[in-house]
Amino acid sequence: MKVVALAGGVGGGRLAHGLALAGADLTVIVNTGDDFTHLGLRICPDIDSVTYTLAGIANREQGWGVAGETTAAMERIRRLGGEDWFLLGDRDLALHILRTDRLRQGEPLSAVTADIAAKLGITARILPMTDDPVATMVQTPAGELSFQNWFVRRRAEGAVTGFRFDGIEAARPAFGLTEALAAAEAIVICPSNPYVSIDPILSVPGLREAMPKVPVIAVSPIIGGEAVKGPAARLLRELGTEASPVGIADHYGSLLSGMVIDEADAGLAARLRIPVRATKSLMQTDEDRLALARECLDLAGSLAWTS
Amino acid sequence: MKVVALAGGVGGGRLAHGLALAGADLTVIVNTGDDFTHLGLRICPDIDSVTYTLAGIANREQGWGVAGETTAAMERIRRLGGEDWFLLGDRDLALHILRTDRLRQGEPLSAVTADIAAKLGITARILPMTDDPVATMVQTPAGELSFQNWFVRRRAEGAVTGFRFDGIEAARPAFGLTEALAAAEAIVICPSNPYVSIDPILSVPGLREAMPKVPVIAVSPIIGGEAVKGPAARLLRELGTEASPVGIADHYGSLLSGMVIDEADAGLAARLRIPVRATKSLMQTDEDRLALARECLDLAGSLAWTS
Repeated sequence: MKVVALAGGVGGGRLAHGLALAGADLTVIVNTGDDFTHLGLRICPDIDSVTYTLAGIANREQGWGVAGETTAAMERIRRLGGEDWFLLGDRDLALHILRTDRLRQGEPLSAVTADIAAKLGITARILPMTDDPVATMVQTPAGELSFQNWFVRRRAEGAVTGFRFDGIEAARPAFGLTEALAAAEAIVICPSNPYVSIDPILSVPGLREAMPKVPVIAVSPIIGGEAVKGPAARLLRELGTEASPVGIADHYGSLLSGMVIDEADAGLAARLRIPVRATKSLMQTDEDRLALARECLDLAGSLAWTS
Repeated sequence: MKVVALAGGVGGGRLAHGLALAGADLTVIVNTGDDFTHLGLRICPDIDSVTYTLAGIANREQGWGVAGETTAAMERIRRLGGEDWFLLGDRDLALHILRTDRLRQGEPLSAVTADIAAKLGITARILPMTDDPVATMVQTPAGELSFQNWFVRRRAEGAVTGFRFDGIEAARPAFGLTEALAAAEAIVICPSNPYVSIDPILSVPGLREAMPKVPVIAVSPIIGGEAVKGPAARLLRELGTEASPVGIADHYGSLLSGMVIDEADAGLAARLRIPVRATKSLMQTDEDRLALARECLDLAGSLAWTS
């Protein structure tokens, strides 16, 4: 089955990995709103999390970076007085150096991303949502903060009133993206943060319109009122939405054909007016990832049958 | 004694270290003709060799890079298909990343170099010859090659007909350089390659004219007809000069007040028409560096006395 997954970083990468393990003909469209330039290097946290996870070299414990990573360069950067609030391992730095150099020479991010994925032996397609610069800005009572400044430096603390995707009006879908969407037989919205991981993707002009009339399945990133990782549950509450699969369904609205929620939230299924599967949605092992992916594909297949 | 040393990389760094150990009030003016941009990073091999040597963290065996260095990033760069002919260690990369970022933000190389030296605990002043871009080009029968392309990638092999310092006409002495020269009580030309390490420095417009009337002492980089390191001896022969301290003296001409040569070449002293000291000039240990530096300072002091 030709599947397009919309993904943020960690949860997105894990479900994408499951979909690849399940044998899907997979294209992952990845959020680039978190991308930023740091120490002169272009860093794409979500693309890299998806890439490392699909390549089987992600650090499973911390949820970002490379397994078995060393930090000799970062320690020297610290000693030389450079900014050290965003941790970068030595192998990770290598990727940022190469990408930055190739982007400066004029290659689009989609081409660089595809080539790096191929070099790491990944067969799924990884596509940035856009090759154009988009920067997620976090709106707070004290003014706007750039995403990483809020998320990493300030540990995503403090009140948030909304988000703005700077540059989104001029952003075009990445090369090959609308074609991948057009060919999709199912679309899976990964259990990523709806505000800062999925909304930027859906906000790229023309992207929503390019989505074909195929089942769109969202996996809830909220389990038992809490996010598996990150501030999603708090954001849902602060922005006036229920921190539950119902809130997630409300957020995506008419976009969804079906939803996969955690078995802990099975009691909420009755409040959702779309087909729902309740299953174990925490992805700790490869088997977890594969089982959740199969649930998504099975639900999508059943909806395609009835449509 | 206020001493200005003109230096290339390894030999320059070692004698500069000796001069610092000898208690000289030291400014090292370093060749930047070898500098190049690689993988998008600005690399200054001679400045870094001098910096690492003065900081006591240089790799003493290989003559470049940092002691105890790791290469995790370089191995990943290779795996990702990046250029790997110029080896860069993880700690070394950190310096290149920081420098490149600061240069892109508009800081002059001299300011970045001074700050890095301070962070590494160096009390001597390290000055690039210029803050402007200069690129040593190697002239061969088959055309011009950029310096690192010839020196590292082609292992300095093949016939050389001359050198050209691209950009030198527009280069100005680095900030603070003419003042440092004006205050010097002695100038030491380190045992570096005269063509590719010292000539670029001396070719910066205004630099020669800024040299005060104080003793100028050159240490021969040639011992017993061979260079301690690198292609200097071959270049001297190919370019029609004797590969000996006499050839070095001829090359520098009227610039020199005195010369320190190796004891192995003591028999050549009679052919030099300037005061000469013959001593052990190989700098294997800190004691060697200190002893050679003291010989330079002593010779300079004796010349100052008689002038």
